[in-house]
Amino acid sequence: MSSITVFGNGNMGQAIAGVLTKGGASVDHIGSGDAGAAVTGDVVILAVPYPALDQIVQAYGAQLAGKIVVDITNPLNFETFDSLVVPEGSSATAELAAKLPNSRVLKAFNTTFAATLATGKVGQDVTTVLVAGDDAEAKATLIGLIENGGLRAKDAGSLKRAHELEALGFLQLTLAASEKIGWTGGFAVID
Amino acid sequence: MSSITVFGNGNMGQAIAGVLTKGGASVDHIGSGDAGAAVTGDVVILAVPYPALDQIVQAYGAQLAGKIVVDITNPLNFETFDSLVVPEGSSATAELAAKLPNSRVLKAFNTTFAATLATGKVGQDVTTVLVAGDDAEAKATLIGLIENGGLRAKDAGSLKRAHELEALGFLQLTLAASEKIGWTGGFAVID
Repeated sequence: MSSITVFGNGNMGQAIAGVLTKGGASVDHIGSGDAGAAVTGDVVILAVPYPALDQIVQAYGAQLAGKIVVDITNPLNFETFDSLVVPEGSSATAELAAKLPNSRVLKAFNTTFAATLATGKVGQDVTTVLVAGDDAEAKATLIGLIENGGLRAKDAGSLKRAHELEALGFLQLTLAASEKIGWTGGFAVID
Repeated sequence: MSSITVFGNGNMGQAIAGVLTKGGASVDHIGSGDAGAAVTGDVVILAVPYPALDQIVQAYGAQLAGKIVVDITNPLNFETFDSLVVPEGSSATAELAAKLPNSRVLKAFNTTFAATLATGKVGQDVTTVLVAGDDAEAKATLIGLIENGGLRAKDAGSLKRAHELEALGFLQLTLAASEKIGWTGGFAVID
């Protein structure tokens, strides 16, 4: 059985855990109060806000070596809602990968609102999780876990494409925040 | 009747003209061989590849003053298919707007493949055109023309959001080029 640790127990952490559990994986959570917890999962989902990534790297970085580590963040400037806080052309995931050189870092789940993970649908379409990263085997593992949970997942390219995934996630958040779309909608991926 | 000039007569130019004609607009085309043509439309769609924008600015810039000018380009580096050729954080549309300070420059149609404009559908979903720009009235005009043609259209924000629309267009092109999606699919926008 696949063993997964999810950092964070908010809407996204719960929704992602729901998908992976449905697919037959064993999931445990680590919350912000669980100082010194053991990271037992082979796949680790960081379902936390962007500013919490650094704390996790500091507290758990050594334990994350060798593991598949999934960054789901959208690093918005929430004061202006008009830009990201990562350098232009870069991504939160690229920053994280640089800080975790011994981990297999992926981007995923940042373009799917929690409700679309929980219901498995964006409108009439099955929810598709886009996954980017430089480790093809790690991507295939995560895609398999997601598909086992009843959703679709696609390899969206190399770690560089995390920039485009974060742009997509940002755009989707601005559309929902301005009520152009609902939090149960967003971008569906159609073959 | 709305009067529209479309630069370019390729797949995109024809598909866009089809939507706008269906909506009751009068559409004429200017091709690369039509040197010195008069730009009669109140709305001008630049349905040309990114490298052709500068030639159009030079040849027709004065005639575009006061008009709504729509940039549809995805400024890919087609040698690498791994980056855009515009500066990081910027967009083709922002560059164009700087060169046409007297025009009302918008981004649109770069996130919808030609086939989805021609059929009006992305999978089961009605095709949605995302429109960005700083001129609210110009955006409302273009959105109305598109909706009259049977598609959906949404205001995706200010000219700054052209960066995110180009990231989305780029990602969609890489997904289609790597056969993860088809050229009749892509990102549907779900309310």
